[in-house]
Amino acid sequence: MSKTRTDKRLLKNLRYLFHPEAVAVIGASENPSKLGFHVMKSLTQGAFPGAIFPINPGAEAIMGISAYPSVNAVPEPIDLGVIVLPAESVPSVFDECIRKGIKAIVLITAGFKEIEDPRGAELQEILAGLANEAGIPVIGPNTFGMANLHRDLNASFTPEFSRLPKGTVALVSQSGGISHLMAFMAMRQDMGISKIVGLGNRLNVDFSDMVAYLMDDSDTNVIMLYLEGLDDPRRLIEAVSVQRGVKPVVAYKTGRAESGDRASLSHTGSMAGRHEVYDGALKQAGILCFDDTQDMLDAARALAMCPPPGRGRIGVLSGQAGPAMAACDVCEAEGLEIAVFRPETQTVVNGLLPPLALRTNPVDMGPAWYSTSAITGVVKAVLEDDGVDGILLLMMFASANRAAVAGIKEFLLEWKQKKPVVSCLIAPPGIWDSEVADLEKGGALINLPTPERAAKIMAALWRYKRMLAGLKDE
Amino acid sequence: MSKTRTDKRLLKNLRYLFHPEAVAVIGASENPSKLGFHVMKSLTQGAFPGAIFPINPGAEAIMGISAYPSVNAVPEPIDLGVIVLPAESVPSVFDECIRKGIKAIVLITAGFKEIEDPRGAELQEILAGLANEAGIPVIGPNTFGMANLHRDLNASFTPEFSRLPKGTVALVSQSGGISHLMAFMAMRQDMGISKIVGLGNRLNVDFSDMVAYLMDDSDTNVIMLYLEGLDDPRRLIEAVSVQRGVKPVVAYKTGRAESGDRASLSHTGSMAGRHEVYDGALKQAGILCFDDTQDMLDAARALAMCPPPGRGRIGVLSGQAGPAMAACDVCEAEGLEIAVFRPETQTVVNGLLPPLALRTNPVDMGPAWYSTSAITGVVKAVLEDDGVDGILLLMMFASANRAAVAGIKEFLLEWKQKKPVVSCLIAPPGIWDSEVADLEKGGALINLPTPERAAKIMAALWRYKRMLAGLKDE
Repeated sequence: MSKTRTDKRLLKNLRYLFHPEAVAVIGASENPSKLGFHVMKSLTQGAFPGAIFPINPGAEAIMGISAYPSVNAVPEPIDLGVIVLPAESVPSVFDECIRKGIKAIVLITAGFKEIEDPRGAELQEILAGLANEAGIPVIGPNTFGMANLHRDLNASFTPEFSRLPKGTVALVSQSGGISHLMAFMAMRQDMGISKIVGLGNRLNVDFSDMVAYLMDDSDTNVIMLYLEGLDDPRRLIEAVSVQRGVKPVVAYKTGRAESGDRASLSHTGSMAGRHEVYDGALKQAGILCFDDTQDMLDAARALAMCPPPGRGRIGVLSGQAGPAMAACDVCEAEGLEIAVFRPETQTVVNGLLPPLALRTNPVDMGPAWYSTSAITGVVKAVLEDDGVDGILLLMMFASANRAAVAGIKEFLLEWKQKKPVVSCLIAPPGIWDSEVADLEKGGALINLPTPERAAKIMAALWRYKRMLAGLKDE
Repeated sequence: MSKTRTDKRLLKNLRYLFHPEAVAVIGASENPSKLGFHVMKSLTQGAFPGAIFPINPGAEAIMGISAYPSVNAVPEPIDLGVIVLPAESVPSVFDECIRKGIKAIVLITAGFKEIEDPRGAELQEILAGLANEAGIPVIGPNTFGMANLHRDLNASFTPEFSRLPKGTVALVSQSGGISHLMAFMAMRQDMGISKIVGLGNRLNVDFSDMVAYLMDDSDTNVIMLYLEGLDDPRRLIEAVSVQRGVKPVVAYKTGRAESGDRASLSHTGSMAGRHEVYDGALKQAGILCFDDTQDMLDAARALAMCPPPGRGRIGVLSGQAGPAMAACDVCEAEGLEIAVFRPETQTVVNGLLPPLALRTNPVDMGPAWYSTSAITGVVKAVLEDDGVDGILLLMMFASANRAAVAGIKEFLLEWKQKKPVVSCLIAPPGIWDSEVADLEKGGALINLPTPERAAKIMAALWRYKRMLAGLKDE
């Protein structure tokens, strides 16, 4: 970064990055081997409701949209410029953008600070000077771009990002690869995303700026960060600390390994840095840290959907004993307590289940497979127990329990998540899919593909709650 | 278990359990609220090529197949009896089966050693006496049953098990819930299964017997065990030690938590027992241990498909730097070495990739997205480097690298797995699915959904190799 404090004007202009009325693609192309082709496809196929101006001096029109030789030839105002021209031409493009009054830039072009040739870093310095002077926030260089799903804005070279379900989890990432991975994972598990931003070399927009913006973004409830290295970690920590607890911030930082650290230097022009130092500092700021993409994604989804499990006392209600044991092992390892039911609760459970399997916590509801009312009764009694702060609801399909999920659906949808319900309701493809989707969409529960992942997610909710409480006590 | 040594006759008769010519369903029913209905459905829908005899004194025919009042009324020999009648009637059914000359039994009925009433355990003792005397191996009681996919035999109450892809990984499990979970996971990731066996209360067939049988089973290459508790762990350890290294055996044991241990007692009539003691003993026997269903399943799939990574020196070849860093972190944490390329290899890589990103290991192949020949050249050079024992091939889809997977397909299919290739080739649904499936079916690689899981799988292959080497040295 070429400055110590982000200009207020620059932060204010982030609004135009995510909510532009008009976007120019500088370097738009009809040649599929050019990134300018893919960016045009992203914008046009993504149903962006604003104006799109392809900029290309050699074309009349691109993808059926009138093209202009430069941004200054466009007769209307432009908020956002997406640049895909070669590195050496970018300084003059920046000049033109400033003259045109463009408010924000996505600089996809690579070949700056991250390359071996020192001229790359020099060029990046020149651009930073121009952008800072003009108060223009720049995403990149060396990035895939960004997307704001709630504006139907896909300003990236990956048209497929427009397929992402709209939701409330934002991803801000230093790696295009990890961003693409997490986006495709989100698609495959139907997880809703608000914004996805590839910071690239971070010319003048860093994690701290994005966190500050997203804390006030009404479309975002949870912020995910993928980090490799930071020039000034204190700025991020300050940005999160100021609004600690307002919205959960989760982070995954790679570069623990020596070899990975080398990769980081080359990748985005920063060493990943001492992992332990970061880890402690991020936690101190109130950021929940993970060391796995799937774990972070699961936790972000849970934090967006579930209340915290009060004092961490969990009821484990299972259709079979084995998955309950697997979940209990994880719960205890992660510091959750397997609740002791109130006597009244235990009486209800004993009245609903025959003495054929375990009826204390964990509860094996196996003998009640055929009885929707018994299963519902057990779940209700345990959810209403004030000594239980959340439940893990585990059931593996068998022909005899086919009706169980449909049977508890109504009750769970009405219960409305006063306590977290994390489930693992698993069947062969096509059997419980629609019921589970309805339960998730209705906010009744969050479903995970293994009992261990369900328990880990409950533990992440608990860890976040304890972390905030611990920081408050200090 | 009611005996200290398994009878030789009993072990020999396990052949009839998995390869019967004729099966009787004792308690067959046309009432969908009876397990006898679901077992009949499993056998008939599973395309079992042998004879099926429904036994029910009150029915002429069940699902269009002539029914008989008892096994002794059946005019032909019967190899396998599947029993779904209430517990109290089972001793007399056993008597009839013995008279009929039935060679093996699957006893699905619950209500024996696992229930609170001590009569359950007494009844189980009686059955064990009868079965041992007659040399009949009994799967169960208190089990979903079993399936032998290579015989199209689904002798369980879950007809959906017939949907499992045929393959070489066997699962022997003490939990019906975990068995169902792993079966559905296998279906969802198209992982081939040979046999799936729910041991239940283990009347007279335990893990050791199944391992001994599966070591000689030509349809099985890898054996997965899900354990909760063992009455006599030494027998399992002996059974594995005797044939150590012949086939990989992997295990997942729950009951680490106190609450889970309580559940185990109720579940299958055995305390899960001191976890650490088991863990050490299982490792000593040459069993690779896991504490997560997904981790065990991934490892079993990898052990069935991949050679071991020689001396653990890994090449990390990635389409983007971030996923490479994530993989390197896991590799180093798990004791794998990020290889240093031979100078010749490095020269080839440098000739194929421009100096825009990291070209030493890990290699960021980002600048070669458009060039299939460059990517293939890098992969080939690194696979041919005798200082590299396996590669992690990571690539997240972007429009510009769409052709990359198709482009390296031919080369990888020809390479034929002299070294393990573990990949994470991830795209939105529908984009690379068929190419990746072809590569997996052709034995060229194993694909995982995150770079961390890919690295963990490489580490599991390496851990297995080191474990065997360590035990050999003793």
